[in-house]
Amino acid sequence: MDFAPTPAQAELVGSARRIAQEVLLPSYRGRTRLEPSLRREIGAAGLLGSELPVAYGGGGTDRVTTGLIVEQIGRGDISAGYLQVVGSLVGQILVGAAPHLAAEWVPRICSGADVVGIGLTEPHAGSDAGVPRLTARRDGSDWVLDGVKSLSFALDAAAAVVFARTGPSQARGKDISAFLVPLDGVRREPYPDVGTRAVQRGAVHLEGTRIPGDHLIGAEGRGFSQVMRGFDFSRALIGLQCLGCAAQSVDETWEYVARREAFDRPLSTNQGVAFPLAEADTLLDAARLLCLETLWRKDRDLPHTAQAAKCKWWAPKVAHDAVTQCVLLHGQYGYRTELPLAQRMNDVLGLQIGDGTAQIMKLVIARERVGRDLAP
Amino acid sequence: MDFAPTPAQAELVGSARRIAQEVLLPSYRGRTRLEPSLRREIGAAGLLGSELPVAYGGGGTDRVTTGLIVEQIGRGDISAGYLQVVGSLVGQILVGAAPHLAAEWVPRICSGADVVGIGLTEPHAGSDAGVPRLTARRDGSDWVLDGVKSLSFALDAAAAVVFARTGPSQARGKDISAFLVPLDGVRREPYPDVGTRAVQRGAVHLEGTRIPGDHLIGAEGRGFSQVMRGFDFSRALIGLQCLGCAAQSVDETWEYVARREAFDRPLSTNQGVAFPLAEADTLLDAARLLCLETLWRKDRDLPHTAQAAKCKWWAPKVAHDAVTQCVLLHGQYGYRTELPLAQRMNDVLGLQIGDGTAQIMKLVIARERVGRDLAP
Amino acid sequence: MDFAPTPAQAELVGSARRIAQEVLLPSYRGRTRLEPSLRREIGAAGLLGSELPVAYGGGGTDRVTTGLIVEQIGRGDISAGYLQVVGSLVGQILVGAAPHLAAEWVPRICSGADVVGIGLTEPHAGSDAGVPRLTARRDGSDWVLDGVKSLSFALDAAAAVVFARTGPSQARGKDISAFLVPLDGVRREPYPDVGTRAVQRGAVHLEGTRIPGDHLIGAEGRGFSQVMRGFDFSRALIGLQCLGCAAQSVDETWEYVARREAFDRPLSTNQGVAFPLAEADTLLDAARLLCLETLWRKDRDLPHTAQAAKCKWWAPKVAHDAVTQCVLLHGQYGYRTELPLAQRMNDVLGLQIGDGTAQIMKLVIARERVGRDLAP
Amino acid sequence: MDFAPTPAQAELVGSARRIAQEVLLPSYRGRTRLEPSLRREIGAAGLLGSELPVAYGGGGTDRVTTGLIVEQIGRGDISAGYLQVVGSLVGQILVGAAPHLAAEWVPRICSGADVVGIGLTEPHAGSDAGVPRLTARRDGSDWVLDGVKSLSFALDAAAAVVFARTGPSQARGKDISAFLVPLDGVRREPYPDVGTRAVQRGAVHLEGTRIPGDHLIGAEGRGFSQVMRGFDFSRALIGLQCLGCAAQSVDETWEYVARREAFDRPLSTNQGVAFPLAEADTLLDAARLLCLETLWRKDRDLPHTAQAAKCKWWAPKVAHDAVTQCVLLHGQYGYRTELPLAQRMNDVLGLQIGDGTAQIMKLVIARERVGRDLAP
Repeated sequence: MDFAPTPAQAELVGSARRIAQEVLLPSYRGRTRLEPSLRREIGAAGLLGSELPVAYGGGGTDRVTTGLIVEQIGRGDISAGYLQVVGSLVGQILVGAAPHLAAEWVPRICSGADVVGIGLTEPHAGSDAGVPRLTARRDGSDWVLDGVKSLSFALDAAAAVVFARTGPSQARGKDISAFLVPLDGVRREPYPDVGTRAVQRGAVHLEGTRIPGDHLIGAEGRGFSQVMRGFDFSRALIGLQCLGCAAQSVDETWEYVARREAFDRPLSTNQGVAFPLAEADTLLDAARLLCLETLWRKDRDLPHTAQAAKCKWWAPKVAHDAVTQCVLLHGQYGYRTELPLAQRMNDVLGLQIGDGTAQIMKLVIARERVGRDLAP
Repeated sequence: MDFAPTPAQAELVGSARRIAQEVLLPSYRGRTRLEPSLRREIGAAGLLGSELPVAYGGGGTDRVTTGLIVEQIGRGDISAGYLQVVGSLVGQILVGAAPHLAAEWVPRICSGADVVGIGLTEPHAGSDAGVPRLTARRDGSDWVLDGVKSLSFALDAAAAVVFARTGPSQARGKDISAFLVPLDGVRREPYPDVGTRAVQRGAVHLEGTRIPGDHLIGAEGRGFSQVMRGFDFSRALIGLQCLGCAAQSVDETWEYVARREAFDRPLSTNQGVAFPLAEADTLLDAARLLCLETLWRKDRDLPHTAQAAKCKWWAPKVAHDAVTQCVLLHGQYGYRTELPLAQRMNDVLGLQIGDGTAQIMKLVIARERVGRDLAP
Repeated sequence: MDFAPTPAQAELVGSARRIAQEVLLPSYRGRTRLEPSLRREIGAAGLLGSELPVAYGGGGTDRVTTGLIVEQIGRGDISAGYLQVVGSLVGQILVGAAPHLAAEWVPRICSGADVVGIGLTEPHAGSDAGVPRLTARRDGSDWVLDGVKSLSFALDAAAAVVFARTGPSQARGKDISAFLVPLDGVRREPYPDVGTRAVQRGAVHLEGTRIPGDHLIGAEGRGFSQVMRGFDFSRALIGLQCLGCAAQSVDETWEYVARREAFDRPLSTNQGVAFPLAEADTLLDAARLLCLETLWRKDRDLPHTAQAAKCKWWAPKVAHDAVTQCVLLHGQYGYRTELPLAQRMNDVLGLQIGDGTAQIMKLVIARERVGRDLAP
Repeated sequence: MDFAPTPAQAELVGSARRIAQEVLLPSYRGRTRLEPSLRREIGAAGLLGSELPVAYGGGGTDRVTTGLIVEQIGRGDISAGYLQVVGSLVGQILVGAAPHLAAEWVPRICSGADVVGIGLTEPHAGSDAGVPRLTARRDGSDWVLDGVKSLSFALDAAAAVVFARTGPSQARGKDISAFLVPLDGVRREPYPDVGTRAVQRGAVHLEGTRIPGDHLIGAEGRGFSQVMRGFDFSRALIGLQCLGCAAQSVDETWEYVARREAFDRPLSTNQGVAFPLAEADTLLDAARLLCLETLWRKDRDLPHTAQAAKCKWWAPKVAHDAVTQCVLLHGQYGYRTELPLAQRMNDVLGLQIGDGTAQIMKLVIARERVGRDLAP
């Protein structure tokens, strides 16, 4: 066992830390968009698609490395971490199932030139991605799509991977195909979320949207099971994204309580103040290792579905609890939007919901333990 | 023992419920001010100062009644509940220690015509109200005040009760006097809080502010210990304010999960969904009784310092946890600001901080248990 | 609203406190049986069946009173509290549905002369009391019973109320009748429980046990639904039994930490020590009120099924958590069996299981909220 | 980063698993002594002192390996895990500071022939090991010791490492020396602990006990700071010992709930049953990685004081919570001593206390964060 990053990993982590602390963090509060120039700066530092093949503009490392990068980026701006998480997911779908599309799009993802979103859910369905109402029908050599998808980067994305019904079945997971849809001219609707504003979560309205026939990803009618297989690891990335955000908050709070006096002594000399922070330190460290080990499993092609589900329900929760505690320990200052803490609290909350609720994750864990028949 | 409200209480509760559900709740989201017309409507319904003496325009009931009212108001708009909490506190200070000021101001509080704030803390001091930097010096028959106070209703308040140094001591709780300061022409600075925007927490800058000599409340130099004695009960009111907000959220969430389907069945048929709500129901009920019992103790002149501290640290926390859970159970909809839940979550959080942190409350409980010498 | 006990209640509470502190507590550790003399002493003080009709030897008060008594008894010996809980349940079944049996047995319960157990569950079924395998068949004017029942006081009970199949149905809750079975000569098997040894939980083996025809309680084939209706309140009694045990432990722990020094100062001066106790104080108080309010509802014939379920899942948990915390705060001494704390921890744990698990209680709460169809 | 054990580690883990499952687990319940034959069997399998130098009979591996072994042993019998934890600690003290004593004793520890205890605390002092009352005075070339030490294996240990005052100071950590004391003929007093009976925690009464002059370990008067430096890693071993115990319990409980039916379906199909187990799985995995990473830090001579403190407060708590949950999910069967669960619950609890309470651990974490002056 070895818990040390390699020199190559350490170098990328250093780059990520610099961008996070010097570029992202100072402008974090109130950010409502990840500007193209910002994306390009992150991409130019090798921090996008670091685990994607070099042939497609990626870094050719592994997912543990991406995890370490996302953690650092999360310290600067948790919303910016979506670039890695979404980019990694979209990149691997395209590389794995549609090399011709990957050749066109993945280099642009890795450079930060473009964002390509991924639309798994629809407004009516929440975590239940297996029952899309979006339809795609052939029209000559093209496909024509009708329906609505919810996704991150809804306003800025140049394209999106979506799942659509391409057959008569209404059953969960059947007759579903995956497509890459360029979003030029598509109507976009932002969601008024309480956090992660810069992620611009929203809807794209595909209203007779026409795409070339070769924008089908994988086999027709088998998109859901085929394309989504093996992407559990993104749940571990999300965990690290949240944990970075929380770790930054806890660091700032230790500094604050050591400096701030109340009742004639530094706040930090109160066990009632220091102990919750010591507890947060503990849980954040443990959750971090859980996420990294999950990514390592993926890198080794080891089973990691249950592990990824553990990361997804727990790490965002640990992170949200920690940030909320940091807000409280800052007292009235924590409650103000002049510090980044309140925004982080609302931002990190979103990742307890997105990409599958805690309940779904626990179902996944149970199924891996006792089989689908004996699970709830 | 009798847990039933009296008919008179039930009637006021009914009025409070109506105003909360019909007036406050529909316009809750995004409210940034409690308009004078809104205050007057609440006052006209007998919901302000219900426990204050009839001679001063109050309702002449008791604090349990006020608690029951605050709980209902909190269901409609937790920010509006500050009117009762602050009004009750200010009203009793004036009635108890400055009848001439009470005669002028309390009827205006009870009618909703005016808000009178209370400035215990200053920006530098957080929960430590015993070390004000605000000074008051005699100038002829007047007092002249210099300093800054943090308070709720900082923008709208017609006047505020404040504590100021009137002697040379810098010791905690010494040489402190209380004053009623009309705020006409005083500079006000809103705080950019993440929640309870309608409460307009902020600073009033007393810069050579001159007030008549008779605006001293209580004895000179003894304001802190004298005036504040016996006001622990407001902590129980705050608890009920939060619990009402949370109970409304839990009610709405039960309705939502019974209606919303996922994976082909109502969300509520999942134990993982229903059990957290059942838990919230339990804790909210228990916390509610704890607060009401504390108010009952105050009404009977029984010791209630420890009980009030229990209410203050626990009820707002229980409420915040419950509302956060409601947000999560609404999934992506909970995260949007179109529903009131996210705002409530941020609103209720503030009351874990204001009026004394959880840490201070636990110190109070410990002192009551083992004495000040053996307490932390 | 009135949270004060009546003078009559206060007097009984005083008696209960004396017996708890002077008789039960000194001999609590290691007790493996509630001796008949002990039961009679408790009965003679008016502490058994206090809410049962005077005509049957009871005290003629109400269930709130019984709750207050159980709480005090639990402070002395949580196992002794089973006398009230079981006695109250059996007493009301007999009084309500079988006056002729009540006339014979209830006075003996109230005096402490006899214990009459209640056998709801069987070894195979856990919390699922609606599917007994015990059968009762008519033989002349008698009934003959075959099967096994689990119950408290399995070794000492003079008789037991049991449920048995008296018809062909195997459906849940159908063809079930209730009986009073004298246990003379019946084989008894103690369960090797980790706690509440003095309650002697175990099995009674009814092997062709013959009882008179008039020992049927209520209508044949309708025992389950008919007899058990309205007995939710015993869940609130169990809550108070646990809370008394925990409150006693917390009192002892406050005393200990105020006295014990470590690192040159009393343990209690550490926030890390005092705060968990302050938290326990808070939750115990709140849970206590929840239980008392539930009993008050029952006394008023108000709906209380959901409330009783809240009491049952939460109060024993709060109590167990508090006692475990007390063990930990006593350090190595808490871990030894020379103090009563470790025994209490194991004792109180049993009441999270007995009479329905937390999961069942949360189902009950959900059903009351959204109806059986929409509940899990 | 690499989370895979080496082949050599995997082989030792396999041996540990076999002994745990085949030898320890079947006789775990009710065990009150780790018989010499049992110790020798564990030693013969290379499972004692695996990280100690080969020259002294150890295995010459590293502490991560020892951690992996302890985890497996804890699955069979958490008490047996004390052999590794104590053996590792004593072994390194002797090897590092008293090679002549190590040459005599460490091979006997590694073979399981003897147990050598370690007496840090005394009955009066709990976690405060820096203020011993045990005294050692020179008498000719010998030392004569007077006082009482608390230790594990108090009844069986052939010798013990103890700390004693050897000078006039009464200050914490001053004038303290370390000794190896053969315990032949010394009076031993078992403590009546509620758990880990087989560890035989108790007191050794040194009453004029005479030992040779060369049984001083390290420099006179500097034993406390000198000898104890660098032994934080044992806290991570303790964590793994507890986590193994809990993981075994959780495994057994998943099997039980998949098999046991209630209300006509397997218990595991209830989210209210499966979700707490999924949560336990998550936390146990995370805590395990935290402990292993701490041992890896020690193996690399990296700072690990804070990490070890995190392991010590959290892993035993996570383990105790998990085992308690397993007891509850087994219902009435979990509460009986026929299953190992109740014993495990009481056993694992002891390790939240021994070797430093949670409070002390959080102090350690805080000191590493903000320095001793700003820590509580």
